[in-house]
Amino acid sequence: MANSVRSTLHLKRMGIDTHEEPIVYMRADCHVCRSEGFSAHSRVMVTTDRSSIIATLNVVRDGFVLPTEAGLSEAAWLLLAARPGEPASFSHPPPVESFGAVRAKIFGHAFGEAQLLEILTDMATGRYTDIDLSAFLTACTAAGMSLDEVVWLTRGMVKVGERVRWDHAVVADKHSVGGLPGNRTTPIVVSIVAAAGVCIPKTSSRAITSPAGTADTMETLAPVDLDLASMRRVVDRENGCVIWGGAIHLSPVDDLLIRVERALDLDSDAQLVASVLSKKVAAGSTHVVIDIPVGPTAKVRSLDAAHAIARLLERVGNEMGLAVRPVVTDGSQPIGRGIGPALEARDVVAVTRGDRDAPDDLRERAVLLAGEILELAGACTAGGGQTEARNILADGRAWRKLQSICEAQGGMRTPPASSQRFELTATAAGTVVGIDSRQLARAAKLAGAPADPAAGIDLHVRLGASVERGQPLFTLHADSVGELAYAQAYLAAHPGIVTVGEAS
Amino acid sequence: MANSVRSTLHLKRMGIDTHEEPIVYMRADCHVCRSEGFSAHSRVMVTTDRSSIIATLNVVRDGFVLPTEAGLSEAAWLLLAARPGEPASFSHPPPVESFGAVRAKIFGHAFGEAQLLEILTDMATGRYTDIDLSAFLTACTAAGMSLDEVVWLTRGMVKVGERVRWDHAVVADKHSVGGLPGNRTTPIVVSIVAAAGVCIPKTSSRAITSPAGTADTMETLAPVDLDLASMRRVVDRENGCVIWGGAIHLSPVDDLLIRVERALDLDSDAQLVASVLSKKVAAGSTHVVIDIPVGPTAKVRSLDAAHAIARLLERVGNEMGLAVRPVVTDGSQPIGRGIGPALEARDVVAVTRGDRDAPDDLRERAVLLAGEILELAGACTAGGGQTEARNILADGRAWRKLQSICEAQGGMRTPPASSQRFELTATAAGTVVGIDSRQLARAAKLAGAPADPAAGIDLHVRLGASVERGQPLFTLHADSVGELAYAQAYLAAHPGIVTVGEAS
Repeated sequence: MANSVRSTLHLKRMGIDTHEEPIVYMRADCHVCRSEGFSAHSRVMVTTDRSSIIATLNVVRDGFVLPTEAGLSEAAWLLLAARPGEPASFSHPPPVESFGAVRAKIFGHAFGEAQLLEILTDMATGRYTDIDLSAFLTACTAAGMSLDEVVWLTRGMVKVGERVRWDHAVVADKHSVGGLPGNRTTPIVVSIVAAAGVCIPKTSSRAITSPAGTADTMETLAPVDLDLASMRRVVDRENGCVIWGGAIHLSPVDDLLIRVERALDLDSDAQLVASVLSKKVAAGSTHVVIDIPVGPTAKVRSLDAAHAIARLLERVGNEMGLAVRPVVTDGSQPIGRGIGPALEARDVVAVTRGDRDAPDDLRERAVLLAGEILELAGACTAGGGQTEARNILADGRAWRKLQSICEAQGGMRTPPASSQRFELTATAAGTVVGIDSRQLARAAKLAGAPADPAAGIDLHVRLGASVERGQPLFTLHADSVGELAYAQAYLAAHPGIVTVGEAS
Repeated sequence: MANSVRSTLHLKRMGIDTHEEPIVYMRADCHVCRSEGFSAHSRVMVTTDRSSIIATLNVVRDGFVLPTEAGLSEAAWLLLAARPGEPASFSHPPPVESFGAVRAKIFGHAFGEAQLLEILTDMATGRYTDIDLSAFLTACTAAGMSLDEVVWLTRGMVKVGERVRWDHAVVADKHSVGGLPGNRTTPIVVSIVAAAGVCIPKTSSRAITSPAGTADTMETLAPVDLDLASMRRVVDRENGCVIWGGAIHLSPVDDLLIRVERALDLDSDAQLVASVLSKKVAAGSTHVVIDIPVGPTAKVRSLDAAHAIARLLERVGNEMGLAVRPVVTDGSQPIGRGIGPALEARDVVAVTRGDRDAPDDLRERAVLLAGEILELAGACTAGGGQTEARNILADGRAWRKLQSICEAQGGMRTPPASSQRFELTATAAGTVVGIDSRQLARAAKLAGAPADPAAGIDLHVRLGASVERGQPLFTLHADSVGELAYAQAYLAAHPGIVTVGEAS
């Protein structure tokens, strides 16, 4: 009794935004810090009548909180659903036993199925710090993951999240492995497939390490932050949707891991496959086409690597009861012209609407993938998928479907335009012999994409194009002078982003 | 010019202790956040006229700072050596190119010497986040480190810190691998070795997760917070010192890595060896004896593990031009009687002064290590080190030396006594068959050590001792009734700290 009284403080909302990290602010001289032996950076379990979280301690010396108070960062306040002045107790969190298996993995011991589930459960309840998550991801990549481990990881990620069920025998889905700037086929594919009468309830991600994720791009055309009930209403009416998966909590652990992967700029096949397939299973999909672009500066750089990922996707998909069809595609240069949410959305609209100057490559890639889905789903004759997809695009059904999906999601929007621009021009005449997708993506990110949806790059040339001296190669778009300057400095330091060979 | 004016804010010391993580606090509506596109968790470069750091942004909404101000956490304030109200500019930090080598290591590629130096330089300038540091440590452990890589890591850690040079051909040093409560041989060893005329300028650490570091214990006998100039004065006069190393900045990267290693509870031989030896080289040492206690609840738990560390210490030491002598010792139970700064200092004084009831094991351990140093340093005949050390202790030279070192460091002090005590007694007669060093350390910390220097545990029995029912096993010392009660609650929950077997 005496103990529980002694470890109580009153909660105060500090109004400090620490992003996703829960922080608790206490005075070094408060009775809790003294009796529990807490110091700066201690992990602290904060418990109210209704809930409990684990947070990291920041020690404040004066002014911010009274010795009888504990402050919470925004993330901590919301996670705990705290009330102003509410009493809370503070204790050392129990040790995270599951991390022992991560330590063993670091030393080369494989995970067991139960261990992985325990790890993922602890992650889902916020018990893994960023340091722990980083070690987990690094260990999985460094030590490698067996097929069994990838299956268990995928299954575990589904188990610790929510799972959607649909009343259709066939629920189609698509995914692009990514790394190819501008490869924004999803809204076009969903429009075609849904117009063909196949159910395709698409949840998409925001950018991980790229200048735009499909959800970022789609958000410039319509709201994407829909909950499950709203998503069901859209899909019941339109057969399809393109929403942000984050609000559905399909694979909450995946979001945590992706955030750390992004910070590390680290991709591994095992994480990729578990991430993609866990989201598909959780979303209730049954038939999944996966685009794997291959190119020297794409995420997958060789056909061998692409086939290895394709095999792993098929094998793990099979174990999870999914029909998975990987499609290895050309990733030697960006698809479309825009890189960044609004610029990509502009290309999506042009292709779907059938504009004469719409980028051919984006249209052809969308037709290819939509065709594969229609065939896999049994919605057309074998080999007839692309023709069917092309017809649906040509006769305006896809464009009407995109508009009604946007309306159903909350209203169609016009993508924003940037306020700051800079045009990079060719310093000599010649032929475009190389385009570095990674550096283009990096420059687009430095310009502010995806946080600023109008930011990014508009690419004016393709491989093999003849250019004159002074001809624009691409245009940087930004929404602040600082970011434009920052991206320009990057361009100056990396003159080979677009390589122009000598005129013959 | 317009840019530099626009991106200026005035610095404010927030008084928030975030441990070693530099945090900058800005309002979302300040012109810098708006023009640079910063949001919560952005990495921000903060630049004054004199210095520059990279910090993580926390966005504050009101009350804490004005829109014309930026707040700094304690770590950021000290790292930047900021002045109140001083103007600073804010920009996006350049990308951390060296992390590419960490990514390559994760995929199994060895580090090159230049790559490791670049990584350590970026760490020293605060460009690695906790996520990055965790990936680095995990990758080093998972992929393994070759002898070359450990040497380069050690050399790099020296290069990025400050380095002390002494005018002696032989500069002796000692280190204990740790994890053994009460193993406070350092002040005794330094007194013996310095009395023998060998230069031994010892820098020590404060407790990180233990109830006392050597610096905490020594601080109850004399000031330890000396800068380099004061340290030199003490050593010039006395041949030796025992000061806190933190003020000397010998291996700043080591402090960062150790913090993340503790969080992960991950020890690797490579990191341990690089950590220990880089600090020794930076301190200007030439001859180093390293105590490696082995026991079931010590840091090193098997003789095989101890010998592997010993070999690596010798080989890397050799490459660094250090004479290193590892000494594998018994770590099956605490050394001495006291656990906690003042209680350990009492034992140190008793042994050094030659008190009849001084703990034998502490004296023998100190004689062993001092003897090894004297031999390694060539200050006595081979095999004659322990005899020489014992003589110096017996004839009062060591005690006079400890007193004059304390005087030279700023004046000798009497360790404080605790105000609250609780005696744990045996519940049955028998033989002491087990002492859990980790739980003893935990109880000592809960009682207030090392923040309250008088707090801790006084152990009255050793392994193999016969005890009667009701005989005291150890005494808890605390400085408040609350902390005493808290440690008592821990004892009640952990009845096996001292295990008494049945009387035969």
